[in-house]
Amino acid sequence: MEDKKTYASPESYAMNGGKGPYSYAQNSIYQREAAEAAKEKINKAIADHFDIKTLSASLNSVCVADLGCSTGPNTFISVQNIIEAIKLQYISKGVHTEIPEFMVFFNDHVSNDFNTLFKSFPPNKQYIAAGVPGSFHGRLFPKESLHFIHSSFALQWLSKAPMEVMDEGSPAWNKGRIFYTNAQKEVVEAYATQFAKDIDSFLFARAQELVVGGLLALFIPAIPDVMSNSDTFIGTELDLLGSCLMDMAKVGLGSEAKVDAFNLPAYVTTPKELNALIERNQHFSFERMEILNNKSKYLTLCNPSMRSLFLRSAFEGVLEKHFGNDIMDELFNRYTEKVAESSIFLNAEADKSIVLFVLLKRNNY
Amino acid sequence: MEDKKTYASPESYAMNGGKGPYSYAQNSIYQREAAEAAKEKINKAIADHFDIKTLSASLNSVCVADLGCSTGPNTFISVQNIIEAIKLQYISKGVHTEIPEFMVFFNDHVSNDFNTLFKSFPPNKQYIAAGVPGSFHGRLFPKESLHFIHSSFALQWLSKAPMEVMDEGSPAWNKGRIFYTNAQKEVVEAYATQFAKDIDSFLFARAQELVVGGLLALFIPAIPDVMSNSDTFIGTELDLLGSCLMDMAKVGLGSEAKVDAFNLPAYVTTPKELNALIERNQHFSFERMEILNNKSKYLTLCNPSMRSLFLRSAFEGVLEKHFGNDIMDELFNRYTEKVAESSIFLNAEADKSIVLFVLLKRNNY
Repeated sequence: MEDKKTYASPESYAMNGGKGPYSYAQNSIYQREAAEAAKEKINKAIADHFDIKTLSASLNSVCVADLGCSTGPNTFISVQNIIEAIKLQYISKGVHTEIPEFMVFFNDHVSNDFNTLFKSFPPNKQYIAAGVPGSFHGRLFPKESLHFIHSSFALQWLSKAPMEVMDEGSPAWNKGRIFYTNAQKEVVEAYATQFAKDIDSFLFARAQELVVGGLLALFIPAIPDVMSNSDTFIGTELDLLGSCLMDMAKVGLGSEAKVDAFNLPAYVTTPKELNALIERNQHFSFERMEILNNKSKYLTLCNPSMRSLFLRSAFEGVLEKHFGNDIMDELFNRYTEKVAESSIFLNAEADKSIVLFVLLKRNNY
Repeated sequence: MEDKKTYASPESYAMNGGKGPYSYAQNSIYQREAAEAAKEKINKAIADHFDIKTLSASLNSVCVADLGCSTGPNTFISVQNIIEAIKLQYISKGVHTEIPEFMVFFNDHVSNDFNTLFKSFPPNKQYIAAGVPGSFHGRLFPKESLHFIHSSFALQWLSKAPMEVMDEGSPAWNKGRIFYTNAQKEVVEAYATQFAKDIDSFLFARAQELVVGGLLALFIPAIPDVMSNSDTFIGTELDLLGSCLMDMAKVGLGSEAKVDAFNLPAYVTTPKELNALIERNQHFSFERMEILNNKSKYLTLCNPSMRSLFLRSAFEGVLEKHFGNDIMDELFNRYTEKVAESSIFLNAEADKSIVLFVLLKRNNY
């Protein structure tokens, strides 16, 4: 009879910790601008869909989670906005004379720098805070324990790179690359299949954790339906980063076999693809999918050094796990030079990437 | 109307982080033995007082908190035991066909090394885990959100040293010492007053956080009623540590004024004193106060180097905040020598310290 359910902590990578020059905290201004642009979406989502009459009954406090919070500060902006929007509902609809307490769960991988996160809490935060380490590809919270789940710039991370792309015997073998940009269609398909699996398991876990009526608000990097990954800066950049690793292998810094044995566990979806994946899930009503209006997105990152730091803060963790720490400086120096020599960032309009806002509501199904 | 309640993070110190030679993780074997001895107390407390019929109704999952968890591994032993004992209640009393999910909140100061804690989670833990940074002298959790609160070897820490003992104009000025062992009675009284305030605020906060019927289980270092702090090794040791700081001041390493301006924020209570403090709180029914049977307590720590490491892992954080990191090696080297020259640990029977087990149940008051 004993319940042997375990909550294992899978091996994981995370954004760079601390507050140093390569840290995520210092190099996430792009994501920050998106968080600012997201406010309007969140405010409207809560005004239209956060039903305090239903939700107040379910728990003593309002429980909010941010999945893939990293080390801050963006997560604090998002969380503060969510709480203010919910408070506004209590004030304007006046269900309770007293505004309830708020509990916020900050989630990221076990290897995330939670020490830095905790020390960066806003000094007068109006909520109780907890850190929840673990992968959002699995369960993170008890059943029906949350009212609002937010995740921004996190679902592009896969639980793992698809196995086939590292398999020499597979038609999806992605030789000489670390990402699927400009790769043959079997590679792209393998990535798409992994993404579909990961979205399924993500939505299944979140459906268990949300109370009925609870909201799931996601901001996900994407590309327009008719385009490919090479039409985005990030797609081009990761291809370029792979070519730097191959250049280094050729001069004896690492090996080609080592590059072949590695692929980045990330994927950039399209509106159509994501729509179909969400539609097949039956635990949510699909309230909204919109494109986030963050036009100024790349203006702040248009010199090669800043692009390099941006990439390093996000990808160094997973790269150094495979390639070792000792070649990271060389890799990102070469990358900065290659970007400087290329013309890819000369025309900001060439980047077709978008950010999708998705709003789902836990149904009674 | 807006609720301006804030949950500020006070400045804090914590046990030494990481897993190095001075870490708490490597130097808490004494506390570990106590955690082992505590199992029997916890098992009986849960068997006799954890009423699953009442408690199952209140939340979807069983929520447990460990306050002052440090970095492990002792907290994992305690938590595992609590969960097994509660599961046993579900199995033997068969209220539910299914055992509920467990959520465990690990609490310690913001400066605690949560990264090490999270990376040390047992690989197949059967609970959902969260870290909650903050001082247990204030509120940490939402109202009525917990079923079981545990705290072991933590309540001897005061929220701060009493102000009077650092005040040259006060009769309680504790000149030339960093602790109240062998000090005049005004110093001891000032410490006792601070302890009483801290216990009051601790119990008030926990009463709000526990559901009705929820349990509060505390293990607190103490001395028998008729004895004084100088009858314990720890009391004598902290006095000796203070004398090392004075020795160093005399040879120009620091200053006497700096020693006078510092007192350790810790206190060792007696059964009678603690009993009176708990009795005056009306939110709990006082189920039990017992002495923990951990006779072997000091046998594992009876050489000067181990005593020094034990002290350093616990007190270095608060000491280096006042005296600076650069004199810590010198301080603990001198301390080790002084202990080696003294006879205080030759007779283990000379240590009269005890550990009190206290069990309280949240009432309906």
